[in-house]
Amino acid sequence: MRLVGGFIVTMPSPSTICIKMGDVTVEDGIIRSIEYDDGEDVSRRSFVECVATAAAVAALPASSAATPKEDVVDCRGRFLLPGFVDCHAHAPQYAFTGSCIDLPLLEWLETYTFPTERRFEDVEYARGVYMRCVARHVLNGTTTCSYFGTIHLESSKLLVDVVRRYGQRAWVGKVNMDRNSPDDYCESTAASLADTAAFVEWVRDSAAATPPLVAAAITPRFVPTCTAELMRGLAALADEHGLHVQSHLSESAAECEWVKALHPEASCYLDVYDRAGLLGRGRFRTYMAHCVQSDAFERAMLRETSTAVVHCAASNFNIGSGVCNVRRLLREGVDVCLGTDVAGGCSPSMLDAIQQTVVASKVAMFGARGDFDPAVEAPDAAAAAANAPLTLVEALYLATVGGAKVLGLEGVTGQLAVGLEFDCNVVDVRPPSDPTERSAGPVDVFEHDVVEDVLSKFLLLGDERALERIYVRGRLVAREGKLVPGA
Amino acid sequence: MRLVGGFIVTMPSPSTICIKMGDVTVEDGIIRSIEYDDGEDVSRRSFVECVATAAAVAALPASSAATPKEDVVDCRGRFLLPGFVDCHAHAPQYAFTGSCIDLPLLEWLETYTFPTERRFEDVEYARGVYMRCVARHVLNGTTTCSYFGTIHLESSKLLVDVVRRYGQRAWVGKVNMDRNSPDDYCESTAASLADTAAFVEWVRDSAAATPPLVAAAITPRFVPTCTAELMRGLAALADEHGLHVQSHLSESAAECEWVKALHPEASCYLDVYDRAGLLGRGRFRTYMAHCVQSDAFERAMLRETSTAVVHCAASNFNIGSGVCNVRRLLREGVDVCLGTDVAGGCSPSMLDAIQQTVVASKVAMFGARGDFDPAVEAPDAAAAAANAPLTLVEALYLATVGGAKVLGLEGVTGQLAVGLEFDCNVVDVRPPSDPTERSAGPVDVFEHDVVEDVLSKFLLLGDERALERIYVRGRLVAREGKLVPGA
Repeated sequence: MRLVGGFIVTMPSPSTICIKMGDVTVEDGIIRSIEYDDGEDVSRRSFVECVATAAAVAALPASSAATPKEDVVDCRGRFLLPGFVDCHAHAPQYAFTGSCIDLPLLEWLETYTFPTERRFEDVEYARGVYMRCVARHVLNGTTTCSYFGTIHLESSKLLVDVVRRYGQRAWVGKVNMDRNSPDDYCESTAASLADTAAFVEWVRDSAAATPPLVAAAITPRFVPTCTAELMRGLAALADEHGLHVQSHLSESAAECEWVKALHPEASCYLDVYDRAGLLGRGRFRTYMAHCVQSDAFERAMLRETSTAVVHCAASNFNIGSGVCNVRRLLREGVDVCLGTDVAGGCSPSMLDAIQQTVVASKVAMFGARGDFDPAVEAPDAAAAAANAPLTLVEALYLATVGGAKVLGLEGVTGQLAVGLEFDCNVVDVRPPSDPTERSAGPVDVFEHDVVEDVLSKFLLLGDERALERIYVRGRLVAREGKLVPGA
Repeated sequence: MRLVGGFIVTMPSPSTICIKMGDVTVEDGIIRSIEYDDGEDVSRRSFVECVATAAAVAALPASSAATPKEDVVDCRGRFLLPGFVDCHAHAPQYAFTGSCIDLPLLEWLETYTFPTERRFEDVEYARGVYMRCVARHVLNGTTTCSYFGTIHLESSKLLVDVVRRYGQRAWVGKVNMDRNSPDDYCESTAASLADTAAFVEWVRDSAAATPPLVAAAITPRFVPTCTAELMRGLAALADEHGLHVQSHLSESAAECEWVKALHPEASCYLDVYDRAGLLGRGRFRTYMAHCVQSDAFERAMLRETSTAVVHCAASNFNIGSGVCNVRRLLREGVDVCLGTDVAGGCSPSMLDAIQQTVVASKVAMFGARGDFDPAVEAPDAAAAAANAPLTLVEALYLATVGGAKVLGLEGVTGQLAVGLEFDCNVVDVRPPSDPTERSAGPVDVFEHDVVEDVLSKFLLLGDERALERIYVRGRLVAREGKLVPGA
């Protein structure tokens, strides 16, 4: 397969972007070559002129035995972006996403989340939600996703089935909860461990692709709902099978107080996980959502234990947890990636995660420069500089390369580079000719726009309507808003 | 015209919403009657069941002489929402909306805004941008908008023409700038006043509707670019013609420092406008965008002079100005409405303004409870309560009724009520039957959703694809994403 004439977007570093025009050749799901028209970065060149040049120069090759016509994809005028990587999403909560954001974390769990999640004991109910949930994630260009399911074994298997059917790359976790949970949404320690072991083996043994696109992740909900015994058992499973561990850390102040009361023996919230053996420290990967409240001690421990932070900006706003200072985490050497955190976050789109990440980083800067402290008379310029907002490029990096690194996919996906698997969004934001018509999306392109302006407009203002084609490991999983389910 | 079977949304108070099913009758642009099926508020009833009931009971009346078929609009399953009121948008900046959010206000003006706006000397260039800009605002359900143009008389007239053609209710301002501006984007005081007077008279004399849907607004850019003489002249024009005055106030810290240096005689930034006579104090309406930096003294003066605040949450984030504490303004009795502030804000959609208003109010609460102050050990619960985040309903109120009140349209629009003009969005979020298909929008409805959940999903997650019909003064201005231009 040869994708010709597109704007190929790469990120040589976490803060730089490179846009060159050229062709990408994919075989057996792997990027075999990237041939640039010339060496030039076109970021600051006229978008309209570049598209015109591509149309004139890069005429599509004629069909031949070597390149049958269906294997040539016209990408002239389109951006080729690496697929998005969502490192934290609760699939069952998709049922109420876009509503119920009026309570803080612990009350939100009791009032909305647990009553919703317990319904997933019913596999048919689960099917209705999971099909829509995964469809929406894929149609929004999320080629890799790390999902939480519920405590139920059968519906967690179903979630894996749906993800496989729709061709997404994913980690899926059966959630564990054996204390401080509603009577009708709680497990015994033994059953929780047994079901998790059964889930892990079923996911492994039923793998549909080689190497598998979908893997099980060990998924203790969070410390308050997991006994130390359960967590130790889960750590043993992670260690035995080399599985990722995903959970929550230091999200809200009330939660942190609760954990402190539950575990006076621990030096911090993260230490509770560490004492149970759940921090991989190089043996397996552990990533923790939120970390809004993590203090310097805990942040140092995140770095030292190679535990990554999944930044969930929208959710942190919505349920009132606070703002995670991502710039500080990066400065301190902690690995960061992004999550939509549906349904704490309302949107399954990583574009929303990117946008809210930029907003949250501006707010962190406001806080650092003293905006909220009546005693501060003039902005603290040094503090503002040390906590500079993330650029849009940095947020895009976290949403692609950053996520891939955290999930152990460096060398597999996250970038468009020779030898990597082809997880890609082909983005077409070109407007219709009639400005009074509803277009393919909310972006308008003007003759004065340079190429990076247009990419910025897609990232800050665009939506999934621009995603003409979505590929996972070289397979077309969605085209023009319609899923292309696998066998 | 009779709109039958819809969910009619009204807001009895700034914090309460009422959703009842029934029919709305509109004649000559005015709501003549609202007949509810029963007295019941269906907010907490099953959406799916309500729609089924409406389908069974509210069969469409047969065509007759009294109600010709084309005059009956099937609204079963749709919400009838008051049209959105955007009180602050820079039409020329639409050219770069979605890009260029990496600089603080004063640098942002110099680098992106002034070079863009000066191009509007070319009326043909202006036409291309203004057509797309106004089309987008209308297609996003903004039935009333208060626009800034540029300093140019002819392209400001053109903006009025475009707004009239697309049938929006609007205030349009020719911008005034006679100091501290680029050489090629600046006016003499005399020319600025003469052109403004000519603009005001042209808008009045060329009115297409009775009473006019479009009016001129006096639009000094902001204190730094306007001499006292210019502002006094503009105040005289506002007073003479009873025109609204729109401008900017206390947006960024650096801007406030600059104003203080320019006007040591004034007691605060707002006082500079007051000394020039630009605060209407009941004689005419004055509304100021941003007010992020307004201290207690200035806020008291806002209230005492009946000067309203246009809250532009997205823009305040994007260009790093800070967060305006709307809860505090409301508590102190200041009138507040919302603005998209394109292109400081990226999206022309008031849905984005509503969402970012809720986010900003959560951040203001974070600040008040001490999240950003390392000296605060535990959250200040009393401060958090006094600065409680805005609810989604409160944000919707500000985006409709609140805006209408600020613009002097109380008794004209902002609500759906008998005797008011019919400015309305007919919202259809019902999903397609096939979950693998791209739907009419990003919202999924489940069988467990109650009516207010579905409305919440539209407001927090939805987009303009749900806007089946948009009415201004009873005229259909857009249908299924396509404008219906007037004569």
